[in-house]
Amino acid sequence: MKIAIIGSGALGLYYGAMLQRGGQEVHFLLRRDYDAIISGGLRVHSINGDFYLPAISGHKTSDTIGPVELVIVGLKTFANGFIYDLIKPLIGADTKILTLQNGLGNEEILAELFGAERILGGVAFLCSNRGEPGHVHHLGAGRVIIGEYSKNDNMRLELIAACFSSAGVECKTTDDLKKARWEKLVWNIPFNGLCALLQQPVDKLLEAPGCRKLVRDLMIEVITAANAQNLSQAISEVYADEMLEFTDGMGEYKPSMQIDREEGRKLEIQAIFRVPLEYGGQHDISMPRIEMLAVLLEQGQGSAAPP
Amino acid sequence: MKIAIIGSGALGLYYGAMLQRGGQEVHFLLRRDYDAIISGGLRVHSINGDFYLPAISGHKTSDTIGPVELVIVGLKTFANGFIYDLIKPLIGADTKILTLQNGLGNEEILAELFGAERILGGVAFLCSNRGEPGHVHHLGAGRVIIGEYSKNDNMRLELIAACFSSAGVECKTTDDLKKARWEKLVWNIPFNGLCALLQQPVDKLLEAPGCRKLVRDLMIEVITAANAQNLSQAISEVYADEMLEFTDGMGEYKPSMQIDREEGRKLEIQAIFRVPLEYGGQHDISMPRIEMLAVLLEQGQGSAAPP
Repeated sequence: MKIAIIGSGALGLYYGAMLQRGGQEVHFLLRRDYDAIISGGLRVHSINGDFYLPAISGHKTSDTIGPVELVIVGLKTFANGFIYDLIKPLIGADTKILTLQNGLGNEEILAELFGAERILGGVAFLCSNRGEPGHVHHLGAGRVIIGEYSKNDNMRLELIAACFSSAGVECKTTDDLKKARWEKLVWNIPFNGLCALLQQPVDKLLEAPGCRKLVRDLMIEVITAANAQNLSQAISEVYADEMLEFTDGMGEYKPSMQIDREEGRKLEIQAIFRVPLEYGGQHDISMPRIEMLAVLLEQGQGSAAPP
Repeated sequence: MKIAIIGSGALGLYYGAMLQRGGQEVHFLLRRDYDAIISGGLRVHSINGDFYLPAISGHKTSDTIGPVELVIVGLKTFANGFIYDLIKPLIGADTKILTLQNGLGNEEILAELFGAERILGGVAFLCSNRGEPGHVHHLGAGRVIIGEYSKNDNMRLELIAACFSSAGVECKTTDDLKKARWEKLVWNIPFNGLCALLQQPVDKLLEAPGCRKLVRDLMIEVITAANAQNLSQAISEVYADEMLEFTDGMGEYKPSMQIDREEGRKLEIQAIFRVPLEYGGQHDISMPRIEMLAVLLEQGQGSAAPP
């Protein structure tokens, strides 16, 4: 399958590398890592074993990639304003777009721009960080859950899942993408938010009983809002405890938003906080802690007014 | 009146200087400023006009002060563990102790150690900061409200109020010290907490609509908890708006807790947050934002477990 990776950060580089090693024809849109990867290839430092891809099809613009069968979007959501220009040259008659971005609202933006029938979404449970240019670090987990946004085409969904699986990435499909997205938020909202605000990795938050309780209280607010969204099945509170245990195994992992703040980048507050708050608010769900965390993050990065 | 100032920080130095200039016999227990004040006196830089006191009765221990008529306590509440040794030498048959410390629980500690009948409490609406040793800056406001803790002795209360008033410090008396303390918390909880957490002065918080709303939401939680405490009169929500307006006039003021954090000192989380949360919790008042702010401050200063 001819695949384009748009947004070659920690997530895009890792999955792109796995898919290429798995035999797919992968093209990367590169910015920071372009020179390093063109001259020296891409090195993946993985808990499952390091590997090296000497020859990468790297591009500075999407025009030189041309139409593909699958676009995988790993772009930071605050860059969604550029997404039309980045993806337009990749679109052919049958191109599918799979967004693995964080939070809510990304499929909607892509559907508006390129037609809902092309759009798939997925959530990635991946611990990875970028290293020096040309290096990506896979620190843990990595499984992906993907689903159709509006079309009901089980065959193409299974085909994409098979690409991931045969490349060594655990990939499940779901009939309820919305539920998968909200389940991911159960993790993203407390950990991205609190780690970025306090500049502390996940283990630091979980070792303090008061803060561990706050993490769980935030999770319960997410679950309550999720269960007002007409999901195929309610998310149980047990899921919060499972996520706490899952995270206990991560050690001193820094979520992406913590790294974004450390490095002075914009934070994904809109997709991870504001859209979920809006969807919860539409059903009169009280989310005082999530609202407070969003305000504190906005205030901390100096973007005073909520969008 | 022979007065001892215990805790000669921004508050103790300012009120002590005012009282001495007003004709009282004031003795200061000094630590950081001892050498500077003994050799060079105390300079007050005030919005109401600067003044200079060349001769100060400064002491390194309370023993050399001996029994006084009035002890004014301006100590940081996290130093309450030392309060018995600091005050014991000052106690005579008729000594009164007035605590102007932040938060809740201070009169209770003093009552336990020295007898409830000696204890008075007060809240200070004072914007002041310490400068170089020997200098204190009075940036705004300054009025004090004082009340009896348990005894009902209106005459001695009025006498102490008169000392302040005749020294140029606006001082009112109250029959309901508890209400005055909670009213002060309506300001202290949001502003001390958020300014310390975000390391931003009060004007920065108030100019962002989302953060201004959070400040007000925190104030309403304090008011709700206060009104469960059997006060002589309920605190109205209008008080929150008055406090917001009052604070709009402060400019880029840094509350004491923000400065404590900047300078790496312990924060007064117990007196300003944990005791009020406990009192609110005893009446099943929901205070999710205050609880979250307390946890974030504890987590931020590395004091993981709530006391």
